[in-house]
Amino acid sequence: MGPPMTDLHLRQVLLALQDEYISTLDTDRLELWPEMFVDDCLYEIIPKENFDLGLPAPVIYCDNKAMLRDRVVSLRNANIFQPVVYRHFISGLSFQRMDAAVVEMQSSYLVINTNQLGQSMVYQTGRYHDVVVEADGRWRFKSKRVIYDTSRIQTALAIPI
Amino acid sequence: MGPPMTDLHLRQVLLALQDEYISTLDTDRLELWPEMFVDDCLYEIIPKENFDLGLPAPVIYCDNKAMLRDRVVSLRNANIFQPVVYRHFISGLSFQRMDAAVVEMQSSYLVINTNQLGQSMVYQTGRYHDVVVEADGRWRFKSKRVIYDTSRIQTALAIPI
Amino acid sequence: MGPPMTDLHLRQVLLALQDEYISTLDTDRLELWPEMFVDDCLYEIIPKENFDLGLPAPVIYCDNKAMLRDRVVSLRNANIFQPVVYRHFISGLSFQRMDAAVVEMQSSYLVINTNQLGQSMVYQTGRYHDVVVEADGRWRFKSKRVIYDTSRIQTALAIPI
Repeated sequence: MGPPMTDLHLRQVLLALQDEYISTLDTDRLELWPEMFVDDCLYEIIPKENFDLGLPAPVIYCDNKAMLRDRVVSLRNANIFQPVVYRHFISGLSFQRMDAAVVEMQSSYLVINTNQLGQSMVYQTGRYHDVVVEADGRWRFKSKRVIYDTSRIQTALAIPI
Repeated sequence: MGPPMTDLHLRQVLLALQDEYISTLDTDRLELWPEMFVDDCLYEIIPKENFDLGLPAPVIYCDNKAMLRDRVVSLRNANIFQPVVYRHFISGLSFQRMDAAVVEMQSSYLVINTNQLGQSMVYQTGRYHDVVVEADGRWRFKSKRVIYDTSRIQTALAIPI
Repeated sequence: MGPPMTDLHLRQVLLALQDEYISTLDTDRLELWPEMFVDDCLYEIIPKENFDLGLPAPVIYCDNKAMLRDRVVSLRNANIFQPVVYRHFISGLSFQRMDAAVVEMQSSYLVINTNQLGQSMVYQTGRYHDVVVEADGRWRFKSKRVIYDTSRIQTALAIPI
């Protein structure tokens, strides 16, 4: 009868966490984004090409929550123009429980953006490599490595992915 | 251990409802689409630009089920050519229970269409703002507000989103 | 209170199976792909146009697991260039239990590919028509019919969909 009940329960928890992550970004509540990470966290964005070669030179690298908050402040100050709209879509979750309160997971993402002219295009695809931990009854990201396929990105890597 | 069991259960019910909604549209069973709404319902399509300014002048506005049925009849009569194929994708569900039988929910959607030449393109993205209610053991839409990002729509807003 | 608990449980099992299927493909673990099918299986890829006309002349047709394995071997030998990256996204699941251990299901898929220049584009959409069976505590595909919308495919139908 399929995977054990506990795995399906964990799967549901992880999918809910993913949906919370992308809906936080897509509804422009960026200030809540760093709060989805633990204090001592890692967030990086790496081209797939480099990652596959074992040369993970990240284009974005943040190794604590304060750096994530700084990024949001910068974004808020920089965004003086009508912002581009981003929509994230996630599929293909796989995961492995490492510990009662530690899970490694991966999922594919797609971001579509809509520019000031109202045109929507594929912006980026890639795969999230996450470690999530449970503390105080809530799951948060210990690390999120964004491995992106799309090296021809139309605009600067501005918003969090 | 993540959200309470009851919330994960409700989440499952809502995701199933969303999947039923989009698969009804994408398999061209349009006559079943109005039946997913309560009689006294609201369905509207609003540009995000207007919505954000608090000026929700909808491009489509239906405030009861009979109007939804009329739309389907019009579509069936109008579609004399080989129809365009639409595929909906949904992600980023968030929701809040307002009452035992009333839930507010949002989710991002992506529609890809394929034209008569067999070319598939991003047609539209946006976010659903829904109110769903439970009656007689079934959840239905009390209101569905389709807030779309893509103001440069290639073709007329023909089919339901 | 929505669909019965058992249906929601089955729904979870099927969604997990779908995610396993697409993450196997998207992480380039092609050798595991045939193992998701039973020995006496059917895998075919059919243009929607033909399928709708009741003339399902498949462009790909495999009626046992050995043929699927052969396809993977061919792909491994042919792929001497930097491979294109594919990402699958699934939505709109519908299903019907035919038997305790047999389920028919459908879902819409979207594949985005990224070429050697790092450009990501909509590659293909369509709908899976699957029959899955449970044996030895695991669900596998008895048949997978890939009904694709996108007849203008940019490159050869190389990888499994």
